[in-house]
Amino acid sequence: MKKILVLGAGKSATDLITYLLHHAQQYNWFVTVGDYDLTTAQQKVGNHERGRAVFFDVHDADSRANYIYDCDIVASVLPAAFHILVAHDCLRYGKHLITPSYVSPQERALDADFKNAGLLLMGEIGLDPGIDHMSLMKMIHALRNKNAQITDVRSYCGALIAPESDNNPWHYKFTWAPMNVVLAGQGGTAQYLQNGLPRYIPYNRLFAQHETYEVPGFGAFEAYANRDSIPYRHVYEIEDVPTLLRGTLRKGGFCKAWQAIVTLGLTDNHLHLPNTGNLTYAGLTEAFLPPATSPENLPHRAAHFLQLHPQSEEMKKLGWLGIFDELPIPANSHTPAQALLALLEKKWLLEPQDKDMIVMLHRVHYQLKGKNYAHTATMVVTGESSDKTAIAATVGLPMAMMVKLALTGKVQLTGVQLPVMPQVYEPILTELTQYNIGFTDVEEEL
Amino acid sequence: MKKILVLGAGKSATDLITYLLHHAQQYNWFVTVGDYDLTTAQQKVGNHERGRAVFFDVHDADSRANYIYDCDIVASVLPAAFHILVAHDCLRYGKHLITPSYVSPQERALDADFKNAGLLLMGEIGLDPGIDHMSLMKMIHALRNKNAQITDVRSYCGALIAPESDNNPWHYKFTWAPMNVVLAGQGGTAQYLQNGLPRYIPYNRLFAQHETYEVPGFGAFEAYANRDSIPYRHVYEIEDVPTLLRGTLRKGGFCKAWQAIVTLGLTDNHLHLPNTGNLTYAGLTEAFLPPATSPENLPHRAAHFLQLHPQSEEMKKLGWLGIFDELPIPANSHTPAQALLALLEKKWLLEPQDKDMIVMLHRVHYQLKGKNYAHTATMVVTGESSDKTAIAATVGLPMAMMVKLALTGKVQLTGVQLPVMPQVYEPILTELTQYNIGFTDVEEEL
Repeated sequence: MKKILVLGAGKSATDLITYLLHHAQQYNWFVTVGDYDLTTAQQKVGNHERGRAVFFDVHDADSRANYIYDCDIVASVLPAAFHILVAHDCLRYGKHLITPSYVSPQERALDADFKNAGLLLMGEIGLDPGIDHMSLMKMIHALRNKNAQITDVRSYCGALIAPESDNNPWHYKFTWAPMNVVLAGQGGTAQYLQNGLPRYIPYNRLFAQHETYEVPGFGAFEAYANRDSIPYRHVYEIEDVPTLLRGTLRKGGFCKAWQAIVTLGLTDNHLHLPNTGNLTYAGLTEAFLPPATSPENLPHRAAHFLQLHPQSEEMKKLGWLGIFDELPIPANSHTPAQALLALLEKKWLLEPQDKDMIVMLHRVHYQLKGKNYAHTATMVVTGESSDKTAIAATVGLPMAMMVKLALTGKVQLTGVQLPVMPQVYEPILTELTQYNIGFTDVEEEL
Repeated sequence: MKKILVLGAGKSATDLITYLLHHAQQYNWFVTVGDYDLTTAQQKVGNHERGRAVFFDVHDADSRANYIYDCDIVASVLPAAFHILVAHDCLRYGKHLITPSYVSPQERALDADFKNAGLLLMGEIGLDPGIDHMSLMKMIHALRNKNAQITDVRSYCGALIAPESDNNPWHYKFTWAPMNVVLAGQGGTAQYLQNGLPRYIPYNRLFAQHETYEVPGFGAFEAYANRDSIPYRHVYEIEDVPTLLRGTLRKGGFCKAWQAIVTLGLTDNHLHLPNTGNLTYAGLTEAFLPPATSPENLPHRAAHFLQLHPQSEEMKKLGWLGIFDELPIPANSHTPAQALLALLEKKWLLEPQDKDMIVMLHRVHYQLKGKNYAHTATMVVTGESSDKTAIAATVGLPMAMMVKLALTGKVQLTGVQLPVMPQVYEPILTELTQYNIGFTDVEEEL
């Protein structure tokens, strides 16, 4: 019997756990699910005879070591910063580690150690990063195989809301860690490649410099640049390709309105708000404006400051959020970002019956026999409810399938890896189609 | 004999050391000057019989403790972050500490310890902070004494270049730590008080929201908000005053052009530049612009992006710096801010014969017997050369005079203090006038 340790039982673990338990009999697995919230872990495992839920505190080094020592492979959906703790224990006790998170420099530094130990640390094998890498590599390898010359690679993904559940002017609801959405882009100046040269977009104008894409049947989407695309030139084996951009998708109209929020300063998570107890959202927004020089009301002054028409769609979105209302800011909001989050968590709440929607889009330009082509691959995955989300499926299933590939010996990679090799992406992308997770391809001559 | 330990012998220590040595015979002092660069310390001490220069490494705990143990008072012009190390040793060995730096929260937390030990940590007693606190407190106390009601307090200071040495379109040269000028404002959203309410300015528009002041005989100056003014409401004992702003002065035209640099992203000190060795300033500026959609040249595209006229004063300033030139970026510039610094250090170099200039300006509005007044106090101090600067005098002399007040027993304060009390500011402001450091006062009825 092979023993699987799943770390983290939150929203993103649901399909991972379900898949592993569902296949446990067939492959002779036993699944231990550890979480700091034991109840959540228990709910996810149920009374499955091949599973158990345990209390797990990643900061309790002894307990962490014990659980990792007592398994064959670890699948961790803990917050990304904790993977390095788990990775060191995996090395010590000789276990594979699978995560859906960006591989950190500290994890990457363990590559030789994992290789020497005959172990695999497979990172970035969720949705984004994850399915994006796998599907794009499949496109790139196919084009290479027919001797096409790739000139331009763009890859976008967004965790959004399905049209039938889209009932607010932002066309957005939280389906994922809300604070990450509020702070999106603050990790540093975004970087990508264009015509062989780096291009930089500072946070202060990241959402002003978006691109627009049309997804047939789903309307217009906007994409803003995602962190640092440049290292993926190497990851995707396209060092000769002059243009590479990874981006995040939002529905049309989102980016310009969010840019207004950023310009005002409401996403600042460092500024400490005074603890007076009588600060309102209107007061906070006022504080971010230059002092009044006219008797106009707050939304009009904000519109002028932001160079927006007071009746514009952007101003409607801002007004709908409540940032101009004399509504008290909760006492536990210590920064503008926390205050904004408190508003958004109500306004962008995923209701129980709401369906989320994942949209992924790759667009690759290439030359073949003197002609120019664009290959566009689009994936749209819709969830069933706020409990059965598309994001949990698209994050958890690739991880679970990777666990299966490793435990069954189908994949015998070692070292710190990303899912860019056919032996990984072929079986996983194929199996994902059984879950209605797949791409629509369009080839056009340009 | 009283033993004085001066830590740091760099530019800002010159007048501090000179003053202490000059008065050493009269007051029976011996002055030890410690610096990591022994030669600099030796140059400052010369062959004065009451001084010595020593090698001092603040990170060498034993040596640090020995020097502090062996003195009566420490005057530190080390980088601000190191004062806390010195402060702990001062506590242990029972010594006073004088610094020109902003008092950090960790230093402030030592208040009770310093009080209980009968010791003084006097911080913020240089120029800005320092002379600003002292002169403004004198104005405030005088207005209180005549029962005036203060309504608006603004205090500005700039370390600038004298008109006779002003020969560049920015009307600015480095007279102080250059990297601090490049990174100015990046410590966090600026905060001040207006009509009793906080007002916030994010870094991304700090230089766009400047005020303009005219200093008779010296033309127009611009002021941008300085860090967090709000705590000074308490420091200045003006909790009832609804408007309080501390700001930094530049010559007219500086702020809008610097805002363009910030908007481009060139002050980013986190983005890691590629180590290709062939990046030019034009290439870096290009990287920060959106991809070209017209055949216009780089400066024109930058002007359009920045919403500036190509022939505007701002664009002339930017062009003069060289950010549009095919000039290689030095290999040791790892970030845009470092690359910009390398340019500015040449362009804004203080030549040997150049004279720097300090401008300080307080403007206090008050009501008295039903009438409204503005009291403006202006200080202009001009240096003699790049070796004998106004900034070294205005930073070092208040520190030196505070050392004298403490050692002669004229001031017997304990705890962590700022120079806001008459027993400190009266003798220092009076003595400073002997060095041509003083204010011109104008009272106007509004």
